Amino acid sequence: MLHAVILAGGGGTRLWPLSRTQCPKQFLPLLGQHTLLQQTVLRLGGLIPSERWWFVTGAEQAPLVSSQLAALSDVNGEKVHVLTEPASRNTAAAIGLAALHIQQHDPEAVLVILPADHWIKRREAFLALLARAAQAAEKGALVTLGIVPDHPATGYGYIRRGDVLAGENGPVDAENSIYKVDAFVEKPDVVTAQSYLDSGAYYWNAGIFLWKAAVILEEIAAYLPALAHGLDEVKKSITADVANTTLSEVYRRIESVSIDYGVLEKSSRLVVLPADIGWSDLGDWTTLHRLSSKDARGNTLSANVLDLESENSFIYTDRQRVATIGLKNMVVVDTEDTLLICPTDRAQEVKTIVQQLQNGGEGVAHVSSTVQRPWGSYTVLSENVGFKVKRISVRPGASLSLQLHHHRSEQWVVVAGIAQVTNGEQECQLHVGQSTHIPQGAIHRLSNPGSEMLEVIEVQTGSYLGEDDIVRLADLYHRVSP
Amino acid sequence: MLHAVILAGGGGTRLWPLSRTQCPKQFLPLLGQHTLLQQTVLRLGGLIPSERWWFVTGAEQAPLVSSQLAALSDVNGEKVHVLTEPASRNTAAAIGLAALHIQQHDPEAVLVILPADHWIKRREAFLALLARAAQAAEKGALVTLGIVPDHPATGYGYIRRGDVLAGENGPVDAENSIYKVDAFVEKPDVVTAQSYLDSGAYYWNAGIFLWKAAVILEEIAAYLPALAHGLDEVKKSITADVANTTLSEVYRRIESVSIDYGVLEKSSRLVVLPADIGWSDLGDWTTLHRLSSKDARGNTLSANVLDLESENSFIYTDRQRVATIGLKNMVVVDTEDTLLICPTDRAQEVKTIVQQLQNGGEGVAHVSSTVQRPWGSYTVLSENVGFKVKRISVRPGASLSLQLHHHRSEQWVVVAGIAQVTNGEQECQLHVGQSTHIPQGAIHRLSNPGSEMLEVIEVQTGSYLGEDDIVRLADLYHRVSP
Repeated sequence: MLHAVILAGGGGTRLWPLSRTQCPKQFLPLLGQHTLLQQTVLRLGGLIPSERWWFVTGAEQAPLVSSQLAALSDVNGEKVHVLTEPASRNTAAAIGLAALHIQQHDPEAVLVILPADHWIKRREAFLALLARAAQAAEKGALVTLGIVPDHPATGYGYIRRGDVLAGENGPVDAENSIYKVDAFVEKPDVVTAQSYLDSGAYYWNAGIFLWKAAVILEEIAAYLPALAHGLDEVKKSITADVANTTLSEVYRRIESVSIDYGVLEKSSRLVVLPADIGWSDLGDWTTLHRLSSKDARGNTLSANVLDLESENSFIYTDRQRVATIGLKNMVVVDTEDTLLICPTDRAQEVKTIVQQLQNGGEGVAHVSSTVQRPWGSYTVLSENVGFKVKRISVRPGASLSLQLHHHRSEQWVVVAGIAQVTNGEQECQLHVGQSTHIPQGAIHRLSNPGSEMLEVIEVQTGSYLGEDDIVRLADLYHRVSP
Repeated sequence: MLHAVILAGGGGTRLWPLSRTQCPKQFLPLLGQHTLLQQTVLRLGGLIPSERWWFVTGAEQAPLVSSQLAALSDVNGEKVHVLTEPASRNTAAAIGLAALHIQQHDPEAVLVILPADHWIKRREAFLALLARAAQAAEKGALVTLGIVPDHPATGYGYIRRGDVLAGENGPVDAENSIYKVDAFVEKPDVVTAQSYLDSGAYYWNAGIFLWKAAVILEEIAAYLPALAHGLDEVKKSITADVANTTLSEVYRRIESVSIDYGVLEKSSRLVVLPADIGWSDLGDWTTLHRLSSKDARGNTLSANVLDLESENSFIYTDRQRVATIGLKNMVVVDTEDTLLICPTDRAQEVKTIVQQLQNGGEGVAHVSSTVQRPWGSYTVLSENVGFKVKRISVRPGASLSLQLHHHRSEQWVVVAGIAQVTNGEQECQLHVGQSTHIPQGAIHRLSNPGSEMLEVIEVQTGSYLGEDDIVRLADLYHRVSP
């Protein structure tokens, strides 16, 4: 059966400041109302049901994956599998881990490997292609979709096709054949990219693959024996109930390598299926602008933008009001805590900015002022010497850890929903407009017993208000303090 | 004696979004740590002591004037006179009102009329000029400072000088003479402005005047008899203790006219003193950029800006982080609720933006998210259906009105200072970290009995949270509900 393996662990920041390392672009609704991660699975439609979706992600992002799946009305989030990696070790390890788990459920499984942060415009063509690719994968091939290029892109690796695969049925035409792979080639300069485009024999490598779980594990054993050995250990530990510990140990010592470099470039089983599906990796703001709907002057403007005569500009904001006059070919991205302005043709230099911020130890590279947590999220509304104000959103049924703070007291005011509060020896329910005081040192917990979101305004006062002043005594999400 | 009349009532928005109609540019620290209003009086130094400062302003802005004077350490704010106009009626009425009041104190007073929102770089030259101008005013002249132009400005009215005034002592040279005024001329086009600049006989009209109170009142009587009649009524009412009512009635019917158009253009007593004092009206962002200190690439950047290779750009922000790449000749002004981006050469079109916002009934044209009040200020931190969170700052000794709300309850948490709280029948003091609940309909009051600022986080919940749900029962600032 077909299983979807969705690689959701990437931490790219090329769409900074909207994407952060703690909330990368797969979790953002960049085109349309759904996030890229949601679109990745919705796009599969009936082809692969949700009980055969396997997400591979990091511990920090797992709650985001769960909450974004829970938000999809037609999806039973409980049936979805989320595999949490103890560290990021590139695609070979992630795919190997998923193959191992899926093989336990379904020894004949065919996997569709899908990055969670890409965009595909032509859904029907994509699904038809998956069905054909799955047939080839059933026969033992490692199938990669080769995106038919529509411009001489310098930001992607290319796949050069070889001969048409023998044994394929039907007429041999360029668009509907399966090819052997002649070579993987590195990101080219623009002249070389143009020659690739002109030749018609090169495709973009989009990281979308199909193969049998058994086959990719065989190939990993052949070309990445250390990883194969580690996966074997993990496999044995699954039934022994020490899977997490073993996984951490294995991940500590295995190499970080992509499936492309580690396996595909060496395997003789690799084939490529030309894919004309309107694919994009949304690799920078200019690309996103190109794919967004535009007004008559070529602008993509958020609803709150008041513009006079700008042209070919992309202006994103979630603020009350942005006014722009006469911009030409500009990108403006305006988030709660950070603003980016640059010309369209320098959008790729965002990575330089992020690098400089990271070198300076600045939080805005990593987190936005709204921080996701397993139980929901919080937003810092105001911060100053001696106090901090947060808005805390708790999902129905969710619960913060049982905790205490050494250096601060807290006042909670419920502004939406119902709160179940543990405060020292007391237990109480608070409704809208009601409030409680958590003294410094008191053991406390906030839960949402209701069926709607709980919103609490928290006012912290004290001499030290860092997030690390927290002693966790019990936690639904295994975050207890050591 | 010399008295300063500071016209502080203007509501310009040419530096929007930093300036708003409720907080125009005289109240902003645009160049240096002091606001333009503060600089206007500090610039006078010892020439005119604070007990002879007379501010003319509107009711909305009077608290701002008072608090900005109170913030000046060397100034005794209590001695300063603040005249509050019931409505804005242009400069003839404002100057007439000030002259009337000052004449009661000092029949021989010489007035220096100063707009509160201008910039003067060469303070010593300015003070020397005031001293010379005062001598001429003593003799009965209406003296205007004529700013020696340094570029062909099209945004100012010009004064064409006539003959050198007879009876002046000393050598006759262009810079040190006093001239009769030949004509006021309207804002020119750029070619005409260049010819004015070349001729050396034209000056900018900066609205800085000196004259005796008695003389300007005579001239108002001659050329604006309706205003003179109204001022007479106000004068009689001052002793009869119905001054406010009379003033409102008079202001309702008098004409809105500038002193230039209403009196100066018609009077034969007008003279002009050339003034080379580094004056600017800071009329748009580009002008402010020109006067600000710049880096080697010609940029003026706030501390939080991380820039790659921008040139000749002005970037103001009070946000956590702004990143800019390769901007050229751009203006970026980033405030709590609003962002403006435009090319330097289109900065004057800000007025079009503000006009469109006003036509659309949008608050961001008028008020910023921090709103000044007689007792201090508040900032809206978060707002949503059913709740609103504010940070309230109360000055030492100040007090909000005794009030009640029909549609909301409030929770107050003190985060700095000490609060004196009336809550129904209860009176209590709250310290940092303490909190109280104000039920819907309860009569309440918040005061600061301490000597430091009081900071309170207010969480409002209810079905209707508009600022107009307030019944004021008692108020130190005469704002009791009808």
